[in-house]
Amino acid sequence: MPAIRTARERAREELTREIKQEARRQLASAGAQQLSLRAVARELGMVSSALYRYFPSRDELLTALIMDAYTELGDAAEQALAATADAPARERWRALWQATRDWARANPHEFALIYGTPVPGYAAPKTTIEAAARLPLALFGLVREAPLNPTPPGPTPRGALPEQLTRFTATLAPGLPQHTLARAVSAWVQLIGLIGFELHGHLVGSFDPADDFFAWTIEQTADSLGL
Amino acid sequence: MPAIRTARERAREELTREIKQEARRQLASAGAQQLSLRAVARELGMVSSALYRYFPSRDELLTALIMDAYTELGDAAEQALAATADAPARERWRALWQATRDWARANPHEFALIYGTPVPGYAAPKTTIEAAARLPLALFGLVREAPLNPTPPGPTPRGALPEQLTRFTATLAPGLPQHTLARAVSAWVQLIGLIGFELHGHLVGSFDPADDFFAWTIEQTADSLGL
Repeated sequence: MPAIRTARERAREELTREIKQEARRQLASAGAQQLSLRAVARELGMVSSALYRYFPSRDELLTALIMDAYTELGDAAEQALAATADAPARERWRALWQATRDWARANPHEFALIYGTPVPGYAAPKTTIEAAARLPLALFGLVREAPLNPTPPGPTPRGALPEQLTRFTATLAPGLPQHTLARAVSAWVQLIGLIGFELHGHLVGSFDPADDFFAWTIEQTADSLGL
Repeated sequence: MPAIRTARERAREELTREIKQEARRQLASAGAQQLSLRAVARELGMVSSALYRYFPSRDELLTALIMDAYTELGDAAEQALAATADAPARERWRALWQATRDWARANPHEFALIYGTPVPGYAAPKTTIEAAARLPLALFGLVREAPLNPTPPGPTPRGALPEQLTRFTATLAPGLPQHTLARAVSAWVQLIGLIGFELHGHLVGSFDPADDFFAWTIEQTADSLGL
C-alpha cells in the first residue's frame, strides 16, 4: 500500500467497501443468485452508472465477494495454524477444523457463496484459484509436515486416480504418500460437507447441535491420516 | 389412484406437471432463489391468478420441487438396492453410491435444490422429512443388514454425541453399533459432499474427472464400516 493516498483514492476505497458490504447484506436476504447491481445502487442511494465505475457487472461484484470470502476463510485457517505452530499436529488439525467451522457459522452466506450452489451463468475466473486453494493447502501442508503414524494403505487407487494423485503431490504436497493425500482430500470434503450439512439443516433432529459430531469427525479423520 | 378420473382431474394433473417442469427449467437457468410464480405463469401463457390455484405461493411450488427431488433420489437409491438384493453388501454399497451420483449428475439443479444453498426466507415444511430420509435410511439400512467385519471402535463419542447416537440408533437403525452408525453418517456426508465438490467445480484441475476418486471413496468408506 502506498504511504500517501490521495483523498480520491481513500474515497474510492471507502465506497468499494460500502458496496461490498451492501452486496453481502443482499446475499443474506435474497441470495447470491438475486444479487443485482441496481438493487445495491438503490440501497446506497447511488445511480447505477456511478456503481458501474466500481463494478462494471454483476459478475465482477460476485467475484469480489468470492475473493473476500476465500481470503477471510484462508486467513482464519492460516491464523489457526500460526497460533498452534508449536503444538502437536493433532491439536493443529483440531484448530484448523474449528477455525473453518467458526468462520462458516459466523458467515453462513459467504460459506454458501463459495461452497454452496453456484450462481447460474456465473463462472469464477482463474484469479480466484489461489485464494480458494488456501484452506485445502493449509490442511494438506499440516499433514505433510506432521510426523505421521503408519496407517494401512487402504483401497488401491485405480483408473485415472494414480496419475491425478501423482500430479497433485508433485505440485502441491511433495513427499506425501499417495494414500495419505487421498485421505487428506477426503478429509477436506468431509470438513466442508459436514459444515454444509450443519448450516443447511440436514442434521436437525439427529446430530444438532453438531459440536460433538464435528469433534468426533476431527478425531476420526486425524486417526485415518495417522496424525 | 382412483380407477376413474374425471377430465377435470386429468387436466389438473397435466397442468401441475407442466408447471413443475417449467419451474425446474427456471432452477437451471436462474436458480431456486429467483424462482417466481409470475415468471412461471408467463412462460406457460397463464395468468398468475390461474397459477395460484395450483400453487398458492412460491414456497408451495418450491416445496413441490423439493419433494419431487427427494422422491426421485430416494427411488434411485432404493432401486439400486433392489437390483442388487442378492449381491454382497459391498457391491450393494457401490450400487447405492453410484446411483446417487448418477442421479445428481443427471439432475444437478435438483441436487443443489435439496443439498445446496437454502433459499433465503424459505423453510422446508416437516412434510418433506420422510422423503428426505430415504437416501440416508437406504445407506444405514444396508449397513445394518450387512454382515460386518470387526472394525476398531475409533474415537470415543463425547458430550451430546453418545445420546444423539443412542436416540438415532433406537429410532432409525436398531442394533447398529454406535461407532458404526457414526461412520455411516460420515459416509453419507462424504457421499453428498463429494458429489457437491464434483458438480460445483472444486475438483477441477485436481480430481476431475472424479470417477476414480469417487470409486476410491466408496471402497474407503466400505472399509471403514467393515462392509
